[in-house]
Amino acid sequence: LKESRRILDSNQPTPAIPFQHGLSAIASFPIDVWVKLTNRNYYYLQRNNFGYGEPAGYSPLRHAVANYLNAFRAVKCNPEQVIITNGAQHAFDLIGRVCLAPKTDVLMEDPGYVSARQAFQSFGATIIPVRVDANGFDLDSALSESRNARLAYVTPSHQFPLGVTMSLSRRLQLLEWAKRANAWIVEDDYDSEFRYEGRPLPSLQGIDQDGRVFYIGTFSKTIFAALRLGCLVVPPDLIDIFAAVRALNGLHSPLIAQATLAAFIDEGHFTRHIRRMRKLYRERQEILVSECEKLLAGKIDVKLSESGMHLIGWLNEGVDDRDMSERAASVGIKAASLSSFSFNEVSRGGLILGYTSTNEKQIKQGVKKLAQIFVSNKT
Amino acid sequence: LKESRRILDSNQPTPAIPFQHGLSAIASFPIDVWVKLTNRNYYYLQRNNFGYGEPAGYSPLRHAVANYLNAFRAVKCNPEQVIITNGAQHAFDLIGRVCLAPKTDVLMEDPGYVSARQAFQSFGATIIPVRVDANGFDLDSALSESRNARLAYVTPSHQFPLGVTMSLSRRLQLLEWAKRANAWIVEDDYDSEFRYEGRPLPSLQGIDQDGRVFYIGTFSKTIFAALRLGCLVVPPDLIDIFAAVRALNGLHSPLIAQATLAAFIDEGHFTRHIRRMRKLYRERQEILVSECEKLLAGKIDVKLSESGMHLIGWLNEGVDDRDMSERAASVGIKAASLSSFSFNEVSRGGLILGYTSTNEKQIKQGVKKLAQIFVSNKT
Repeated sequence: LKESRRILDSNQPTPAIPFQHGLSAIASFPIDVWVKLTNRNYYYLQRNNFGYGEPAGYSPLRHAVANYLNAFRAVKCNPEQVIITNGAQHAFDLIGRVCLAPKTDVLMEDPGYVSARQAFQSFGATIIPVRVDANGFDLDSALSESRNARLAYVTPSHQFPLGVTMSLSRRLQLLEWAKRANAWIVEDDYDSEFRYEGRPLPSLQGIDQDGRVFYIGTFSKTIFAALRLGCLVVPPDLIDIFAAVRALNGLHSPLIAQATLAAFIDEGHFTRHIRRMRKLYRERQEILVSECEKLLAGKIDVKLSESGMHLIGWLNEGVDDRDMSERAASVGIKAASLSSFSFNEVSRGGLILGYTSTNEKQIKQGVKKLAQIFVSNKT
Repeated sequence: LKESRRILDSNQPTPAIPFQHGLSAIASFPIDVWVKLTNRNYYYLQRNNFGYGEPAGYSPLRHAVANYLNAFRAVKCNPEQVIITNGAQHAFDLIGRVCLAPKTDVLMEDPGYVSARQAFQSFGATIIPVRVDANGFDLDSALSESRNARLAYVTPSHQFPLGVTMSLSRRLQLLEWAKRANAWIVEDDYDSEFRYEGRPLPSLQGIDQDGRVFYIGTFSKTIFAALRLGCLVVPPDLIDIFAAVRALNGLHSPLIAQATLAAFIDEGHFTRHIRRMRKLYRERQEILVSECEKLLAGKIDVKLSESGMHLIGWLNEGVDDRDMSERAASVGIKAASLSSFSFNEVSRGGLILGYTSTNEKQIKQGVKKLAQIFVSNKT
């Protein structure tokens, strides 16, 4: 029951206040287009499709997603490998069902995504925290901790929350390990659409030759979180078992939302929206950094990043990030501490500063409020 | 993997053909109202609520559902006890997570709902099939099979698929057992809205004094299945753990669908629609029975029922219902066999004849086709 409270605490509703991370710019979403497609699909599908549907997902959506992932993320898959989920959290659950048993060792980035960790722990898995350095997930250090891990969870495109990109040699090393150890890799590609400079890196799944990678995509960041749709790409030999587990786990995702998303992708709205958001988020990131430089120099160290939806505001040595996060909350600011995503003590505290769901004015006000906290910290 | 195929086979999409069971009359759904409410909610909620929401469900919907269940099903609950699910199948899954461990004995009606059985089996539970007689689930016979069951799954309002109503003395006996054995009762109230004669029986949950009942409701039968929304009422001391498991299992149900359903209930459309469907389904049931009497007398025995969405077409002794179901499929008719929902050999074969999703003409054509099968059976 104590564990339940902890899970609920880390899965609270997310108001669009500075600096909530991982939320899309809801006010800039093309709601008129979306509503039009929704209405069209209601009338179109009423004719015959309002009954129970395919557990793995609505076929046109699986095709649209496969095409998109092939083209933009270099994911190698056919539409049958795409399982439509109720968001990434649901994919963790399905993977846990199929791959985990009590006491299974799971390698996880530290710091890393708490909700994935909680999902795997709920199957009784033993979490092995793995150091993240400038090249990402450090497999060598992981293997010194566990010789019989069955699963490794990674965010190679943009490590959550540190933001580093996993190097190619680390990727190859990880794939080689999975092949040798007969283990699985979970690639959580949660915000790779938002890359502001350089070429996007292809997915880890795309360079896997041995069918060891589960690729997880989400529409929570690109469309909006309340939609509850995501995708999971599984190796061909596991399609049936995942579809069956999906059937046992709520049958399938809501039809109209699936059909609307399929049309949104197929008719080009999706990539157009991402392009617009990329521009907007980049601007917002620049505002956040320049405001912090103006008002928080010497207190918070924030650097421009070439991708993502948040930055780490590094604190000075000795400043407790949990304490600062609580102070921020007390003035209406959400700034999660790095410590809250860490297994081991962090060597330097930091605040996770999302910049995507709030506008310029809100970001500036947010930085001002943050600065006040630091002043009161001094006294 | 063989098990996966079996699960997928029993969870196939459901076209609206005679005599598919458990499907609502989609053509009679007030789609204009629903779409209007959907649009309104999109614009209303865009302002602030498109982020991650409450795992247990959107608060206005939990209130609306609690009010409805109190008034119409005599369910005793406050809104906090209502967990919004992605349909009944999802509720089975959540209950399995919280209550089941490998080798746990689960008492289940035989014949009974296969998808619930599969969900519980996926947690390694041992299924104890329990005889159903004219008063419903026979607890005495169950207890002679298992002394340490932790869970009993029942459909007391309208047993699936036989259609009997559990008597009051059996209900009290079951509650007494759960209290004594510290066991749980799952009340799946899947189609109780459709009662054509007499007063509806209050829910089992409503007469439980000891917090041993999980009440499952679904909107798949009253709205439409593709919506994927249902509800689970849990005892007060289990709210947190269920909300936490819900969070790990896909976070929450889609916001707009929840908000639309809340408005649909609150503004009276829901009870109005059920009233209209009750009249329509009753008429369709009468057509089915009279057509069968005309064309299938002596071959299929079908009687009017005071509730539900399907009837059992009893076959003559010695006629194999699986065989007849396959013959029906070959002429484009869906008529699931009683055997396919049974653990033990059935003493008399039957076909499950749904009558709610097809119109008068389709029902008549369906009965004609069925009659042809019986003719060819003779030759």
